[in-house]
Amino acid sequence: VIRRLAIVGLGLLGGSVAKAARAESLAREIVGIGRNPARLEPALGVGAVDRITTDLREGLAGADMVVLATPVATLERQMAAVWEAAPPQALITDVGSTKAAIVRVAESLSARKPLDFVGSHPMAGSNLSGFAVSRADLFRGATIILTPTDRTARDAVKRVTEFWEAAGGRVVTMDPATHDRAVAAVSHLPHLVADALVDAVVRMDPQFLEVAGRGFKDTTRIAASSPEVWREIFEENREALAEAVAAFRAALGDLESVLRSGDRDRIESELERIRKIRAVLG
Amino acid sequence: VIRRLAIVGLGLLGGSVAKAARAESLAREIVGIGRNPARLEPALGVGAVDRITTDLREGLAGADMVVLATPVATLERQMAAVWEAAPPQALITDVGSTKAAIVRVAESLSARKPLDFVGSHPMAGSNLSGFAVSRADLFRGATIILTPTDRTARDAVKRVTEFWEAAGGRVVTMDPATHDRAVAAVSHLPHLVADALVDAVVRMDPQFLEVAGRGFKDTTRIAASSPEVWREIFEENREALAEAVAAFRAALGDLESVLRSGDRDRIESELERIRKIRAVLG
Repeated sequence: VIRRLAIVGLGLLGGSVAKAARAESLAREIVGIGRNPARLEPALGVGAVDRITTDLREGLAGADMVVLATPVATLERQMAAVWEAAPPQALITDVGSTKAAIVRVAESLSARKPLDFVGSHPMAGSNLSGFAVSRADLFRGATIILTPTDRTARDAVKRVTEFWEAAGGRVVTMDPATHDRAVAAVSHLPHLVADALVDAVVRMDPQFLEVAGRGFKDTTRIAASSPEVWREIFEENREALAEAVAAFRAALGDLESVLRSGDRDRIESELERIRKIRAVLG
Repeated sequence: VIRRLAIVGLGLLGGSVAKAARAESLAREIVGIGRNPARLEPALGVGAVDRITTDLREGLAGADMVVLATPVATLERQMAAVWEAAPPQALITDVGSTKAAIVRVAESLSARKPLDFVGSHPMAGSNLSGFAVSRADLFRGATIILTPTDRTARDAVKRVTEFWEAAGGRVVTMDPATHDRAVAAVSHLPHLVADALVDAVVRMDPQFLEVAGRGFKDTTRIAASSPEVWREIFEENREALAEAVAAFRAALGDLESVLRSGDRDRIESELERIRKIRAVLG
């Protein structure tokens, strides 16, 4: 059991970490840290955390586990201060949706002050954000990607794995660069494409949206997400996203030329190949 | 009330028309017509239809309403035979997902033998097909696009509207060409894009699919659809789809250049503009 769990940032993810830790009795004390007291108070009000503070040093004092849950760009800027304020025994993880840059910063900070850090990315979320939509069961059944490197202590990986599994997650590990390419492919690219789909309809005729059915709504649901959060993610993962967009353009172009061929067997076998791959995901 | 409703093709859509008509008592007698008796028998077995036949002439005899529910390409080939076999009082509609070509054929056939025809496109479906997945409530809350022209009798439009509304649908009307552009935008393009998304991930690394979360599943759900059905739809609506793909490429390219600009306000305001449009759809 964690004696003192400190969570920096109590939005959708940080709030859900607090609620899950409380629901599963993963920590004796939970401290919520943030810049804006008004945004922290609801978490105290519903008992998701025991204490709130806007002072990083005060919040991290005595913590044996720290979860960094601010948006990725804020997180990177905060890390030096976190390393300075965190006690030597603290195990640090985060919930950032890109990992290479964060892990790089953590390892360079640990070169001066060694702290256990394991990058985490819970593949859970919503197109909504903020503590109000956080849930104790957000991570139930969700894939949590950990990104240890050869500099990461085995025991730290084990403890972070146990934490996420206790919150209901399914833990997999990847190196940070592979993680960033994987999420560019299965998360950031689909988001950008969903944005472009919505915009494409508007360009043709905004009234066409009036006949959009379930297929269009499903395909574009993620386009209704926070612009601030996604601007940061797109920027943060620029390189891997560019690779994913290139793969997508090639795939779309090849599909179009298969369709243009008019060769029914070839068209159907290509659609069938893709259908089978997608069907496996359920 | 319809005295004799004849439905040609008892797959997902035709089967659901039969079940909805039965559930809402829209017809005294329902006749199911198809090429393969083995595929028709389940509908008779569950009482969705009163009679089945593989003979178009026998099936259409005495029908006052006919719903054509075979796949679009089959449907176009069948229409001459339907016009020949249908009694003069029959009101004919269809469920085809493209409309310009079908309406053109219907009007040219009606120039020789005048029959009331109103093109319908129920924007309801599933990535599954066949009678086994048909449901009486498939059209509940669904948008049904009717595509009358200046040659269509007002009364025919009224009766077809009443039919779909009784089945739970929300009826809107468009001219056939606008319909085809609208569905290219909100249905066929998203499908092609979903296919390309799945293939893009495979091109980068098939193992990345193992960390696909809800966002990816939502965005690509329609890629798990029948290759036969979609090959026909893509072929049938080739021209409008090409226009939609061009609009999409332009939208994606513009989004990329906004991201490349690094201008945070501009990026966020573009993402916000799209978020707002999508959010309206719920």
